[in-house]
Amino acid sequence: MRIGVLTGGGDCPGLNAVIRGVVRKGVGLYGHSFVGFRDGWRGPLENDTMPLDIAAVRGILPRGGTILGSSRTNPFASADGPARVRETMRRTGVDALIAIGGEDTLGAAARLHAEGVPVIGVPKTIDNDLSATDYTFGFDTAVNIATEAIDRLHTTAESHHRVLVVEVMGRHAGWIALHSGMAAGANVILIPERPFDIDKVCAFVEQRFATSYAPIIVVAEGATPIAGTMMAKEGELDAFGHVRLQGISALLETEIRGRTGRETRATVLGHVQRGGTPTAFDRWLATRFGLHAVDAAHDGDFGVMVALHGTRVERVPLAEATGELKTVPEYLYEEAEVFFG
Amino acid sequence: MRIGVLTGGGDCPGLNAVIRGVVRKGVGLYGHSFVGFRDGWRGPLENDTMPLDIAAVRGILPRGGTILGSSRTNPFASADGPARVRETMRRTGVDALIAIGGEDTLGAAARLHAEGVPVIGVPKTIDNDLSATDYTFGFDTAVNIATEAIDRLHTTAESHHRVLVVEVMGRHAGWIALHSGMAAGANVILIPERPFDIDKVCAFVEQRFATSYAPIIVVAEGATPIAGTMMAKEGELDAFGHVRLQGISALLETEIRGRTGRETRATVLGHVQRGGTPTAFDRWLATRFGLHAVDAAHDGDFGVMVALHGTRVERVPLAEATGELKTVPEYLYEEAEVFFG
Amino acid sequence: MRIGVLTGGGDCPGLNAVIRGVVRKGVGLYGHSFVGFRDGWRGPLENDTMPLDIAAVRGILPRGGTILGSSRTNPFASADGPARVRETMRRTGVDALIAIGGEDTLGAAARLHAEGVPVIGVPKTIDNDLSATDYTFGFDTAVNIATEAIDRLHTTAESHHRVLVVEVMGRHAGWIALHSGMAAGANVILIPERPFDIDKVCAFVEQRFATSYAPIIVVAEGATPIAGTMMAKEGELDAFGHVRLQGISALLETEIRGRTGRETRATVLGHVQRGGTPTAFDRWLATRFGLHAVDAAHDGDFGVMVALHGTRVERVPLAEATGELKTVPEYLYEEAEVFFG
Amino acid sequence: MRIGVLTGGGDCPGLNAVIRGVVRKGVGLYGHSFVGFRDGWRGPLENDTMPLDIAAVRGILPRGGTILGSSRTNPFASADGPARVRETMRRTGVDALIAIGGEDTLGAAARLHAEGVPVIGVPKTIDNDLSATDYTFGFDTAVNIATEAIDRLHTTAESHHRVLVVEVMGRHAGWIALHSGMAAGANVILIPERPFDIDKVCAFVEQRFATSYAPIIVVAEGATPIAGTMMAKEGELDAFGHVRLQGISALLETEIRGRTGRETRATVLGHVQRGGTPTAFDRWLATRFGLHAVDAAHDGDFGVMVALHGTRVERVPLAEATGELKTVPEYLYEEAEVFFG
Repeated sequence: MRIGVLTGGGDCPGLNAVIRGVVRKGVGLYGHSFVGFRDGWRGPLENDTMPLDIAAVRGILPRGGTILGSSRTNPFASADGPARVRETMRRTGVDALIAIGGEDTLGAAARLHAEGVPVIGVPKTIDNDLSATDYTFGFDTAVNIATEAIDRLHTTAESHHRVLVVEVMGRHAGWIALHSGMAAGANVILIPERPFDIDKVCAFVEQRFATSYAPIIVVAEGATPIAGTMMAKEGELDAFGHVRLQGISALLETEIRGRTGRETRATVLGHVQRGGTPTAFDRWLATRFGLHAVDAAHDGDFGVMVALHGTRVERVPLAEATGELKTVPEYLYEEAEVFFG
Repeated sequence: MRIGVLTGGGDCPGLNAVIRGVVRKGVGLYGHSFVGFRDGWRGPLENDTMPLDIAAVRGILPRGGTILGSSRTNPFASADGPARVRETMRRTGVDALIAIGGEDTLGAAARLHAEGVPVIGVPKTIDNDLSATDYTFGFDTAVNIATEAIDRLHTTAESHHRVLVVEVMGRHAGWIALHSGMAAGANVILIPERPFDIDKVCAFVEQRFATSYAPIIVVAEGATPIAGTMMAKEGELDAFGHVRLQGISALLETEIRGRTGRETRATVLGHVQRGGTPTAFDRWLATRFGLHAVDAAHDGDFGVMVALHGTRVERVPLAEATGELKTVPEYLYEEAEVFFG
Repeated sequence: MRIGVLTGGGDCPGLNAVIRGVVRKGVGLYGHSFVGFRDGWRGPLENDTMPLDIAAVRGILPRGGTILGSSRTNPFASADGPARVRETMRRTGVDALIAIGGEDTLGAAARLHAEGVPVIGVPKTIDNDLSATDYTFGFDTAVNIATEAIDRLHTTAESHHRVLVVEVMGRHAGWIALHSGMAAGANVILIPERPFDIDKVCAFVEQRFATSYAPIIVVAEGATPIAGTMMAKEGELDAFGHVRLQGISALLETEIRGRTGRETRATVLGHVQRGGTPTAFDRWLATRFGLHAVDAAHDGDFGVMVALHGTRVERVPLAEATGELKTVPEYLYEEAEVFFG
Repeated sequence: MRIGVLTGGGDCPGLNAVIRGVVRKGVGLYGHSFVGFRDGWRGPLENDTMPLDIAAVRGILPRGGTILGSSRTNPFASADGPARVRETMRRTGVDALIAIGGEDTLGAAARLHAEGVPVIGVPKTIDNDLSATDYTFGFDTAVNIATEAIDRLHTTAESHHRVLVVEVMGRHAGWIALHSGMAAGANVILIPERPFDIDKVCAFVEQRFATSYAPIIVVAEGATPIAGTMMAKEGELDAFGHVRLQGISALLETEIRGRTGRETRATVLGHVQRGGTPTAFDRWLATRFGLHAVDAAHDGDFGVMVALHGTRVERVPLAEATGELKTVPEYLYEEAEVFFG
């Protein structure tokens, strides 16, 4: 059997561990051979390949990024995309694909499978917002990076009288904010799932100053105020006539300072959260995802995605896995609220 | 309601996070009050208490160790133990106990509950060998520490020609060895569940030298050779007439050097694995265990232990939780074997 | 002898290590006693003290922040400041002061000494911009935090096509930017000492894309463009009528995006750089500064500051130490330029 | 100009950073070309080379180990060694050598230079025991690794009643033990320069138990007891008839347990201290050493070694640099003794 592997979407610690798991078991146990497709779906669309054997995966387990490159290319962007993927597979003698990616990459995989392409999905996102799996790899790394940063802010909060705002990733789901905020003892956590009341945030700020040292606010980049309640807003034009790129933490800085008169300082961790070496958990999960993905290919069980359920890696239908975003449920946010203020 | 809290057994990152979770929710949401019992079951046996309020738990979330102290005291060691526990509870006005600990501490909790003491258990062990919960807090921290150490050995293995042996914790179960070995790309992993064949280990050593750089062997402290196959052995007397303390890694050093002629160097991480600040995952898990333990107390639902199932914290009967050690199953070890040699 | 200790200015990893060094040697070897003054110069001005003995310094070595609190209070802000300091010393039986701080705190110390107050200075700033000492503690920690962040960005730069800008501390001197930029392989480093040419920065950006993966730009918060060359600028008013707080990285984001059309993302590490546990180097340096400061007090050698010269801690006149800011010299910046582009 | 580069001796974080610094400046600024010699002096002896250009050094800055490989081969081991080195240089068109290594590698470099080979040395040892330079790269990394390990032991020492012994590297000099012991608050530090009195060590152990929590002893691998004072000793034969490999920490374990009856546990960090990514300081120092080494080659200034003096990198005669081991001076050990017990 000859299997093509590709990685799509944003950077995520653990991609290389998946690739290594796939190849080590596929070659060593099953005797399959592999082809790397470069830059996500662009690889099979344009027949851009690289060798993918035991030598190619040596030493990559602890390394961030992906040796295969990545892109956001969508094979359905042009009408002949699926045909070109099939044509590349025919030319390269590839029998099946293993696609490692998030919502978009796996959505394309699901559609390709529906059209007869034998494909297996591996879920990837640091945001942890994919349904059908307890966790995605990369998430634990991102949470630990954010947690360590917030840890460091605590000693400053103890000795300065400044409101500290930390903006973490999470455009549509607040998982990183929730986990790092709880792990590091944030005084308020703001997530996209729950539009925030700026009055309450400022009340927590003042309450915190009254009872302890300065507050630390963890905010997901996608968090938003209840409509119409904040004066600071995005949407102004910058010096080049573009819409000003101003993150939610900059808006909070302006708003909290404006309302409370308190000095407020923001930290924007940005892409620091999605690069570098994965945590042990993410390497373990990513490696196991790789092992189970190649098992599925070996079994000829296509159209599935590997997923973590408890401590077990299992297979779920690709279609089911990509239907709906997994957001933070009410009951988990309420657990965090115990520690607000 | 007035609730006593105690921590028993060995050090484990996350103990303080549990205590904080219990107190913050218990006081803040339910209006309960708390008493800290010092040094595990010794506290209630000897009525040794400390204040445990919001102020006492401030700042402890990221800190290793336990503010309550710990011991291995067993309340059933003397016949009147249970009566003394009950007497202390009466005197201090304590209605219920939350006991945080491993096999021994929780075993005692189960027996006390059977004798009518209202008690709730929180599972704790860096070894991850407690049944009824997917993971225990402290384990993820230990695995990350071991993984980082093994990561560092890889660059040395690349440039020296030495067999590197890393001994990690795990007297009865090989979870830390398995997870850190897989996460860090060990070439052989030896665990207590599977007596090892020293011939095969030496064969892997030579195979590795032949195909790549020097091998790294991860061994759980409780791993043992198949009986009678190794020349190096424990049990000699030392200069003071005590049985020589010689870990399995020292025996492997002797044996591999003796058999292959290869220079062999051991790293013994020891207690480094069970101290210091917890990872984000362990803080999250420990905090949630604390929140759910106090919920159970509030509900009057005694004789239970909180446990992680997938992403949910649930309650299981204490008796069921402590019956049997959770060891590494065959199928997981086989996943790791893919990467041996 | 009875010695008062105070810490002034911004947070800096290692403050507690100095305090511990002072007290452990002062009590243990010399038999002196100590008083802690709270919140920098506010303590002696308002006679706000705390006990400072062996017990008070237990366990603080690895902890960020300062057990004495800090402020930017200037004893010369009111005419009677020096007299009040003297009066507090008389009342508390304090014979001498050890003042740990930066430019401002030590400047006040120098003036107080000139007016007859027996005082010894310990230099502190994460910015490393104090003259007369090779390094200040806190700097190494800040550089390592920034370096680890930039390390993580590299894997993302490899797989995305985005310009990554990292803003680090350094209002007047570019030491953190220079060291972390060199240590982590930045493609451009911008520092306050050298107004930058935005055309050249954009040229490096394009050159980097042409020859390798996406560029990483490290910029000190105090870096500025050559006057009049950038369209993006600070100074607009925000929704509350305050001058908009917009860091140099936000301006660069706007400007690089506007000029090159390249997606650009900024990370602002902010206060994360000045909190948390110190590195081994900073603990070693801070501890030794403490030991040598108490030696100077014991010797009655006042009006001096302890300083690192090579591997030796020596004493220099306070006046000399605080006269001039230590900025990055031309020859060191040129070393870094070797790696630009 | 065509320059050969080699790395000799044990693994040390920062080797790759030196190589990169040499090549980036040599090619980019001076237009020189480079050849890599494999495995230390074995490379020029056996004409074993690898390409060494800008592409070869891409991405290696943060990586431990050495892309050139290493060995302990001595070019003076055979009589024709120097002639073979010269012959290789003639054949490969190499005008000069840059040799990166410790005592042995640089000693050979000094002798070769005396015999007319144009060579420049770069000092390397994690032990920091080379004269003529304030610090060697690799040392700061080793100290931080040891410090983090000891940090973690503190929380366990607080809750258990065990003597904790940590063995760190340092066969002939106690720099790592001294720095990490002071940075992490060890209660006793044992170094090779000062044979220890086991009675005093045990007295410190008991004193510590009496006044605080359990003691942590940091011991350099080369530390030795005052002759004849310990019962536990090396030198017995193991099961294979080899001299038993038993580190000083194992002997201390036996001896302290035997004398005090206290449970004692050792951690042996071993090679973990010499691998993995370098700290920011070590990358900075190694990079600068590389830049200055190629400057010296460009200047034709041979027979020198680059060295750190304060914040300056300077050149010193190779002969002077390798004459004598730099050991811990009395006054520094006395600084540490302030914190014993």
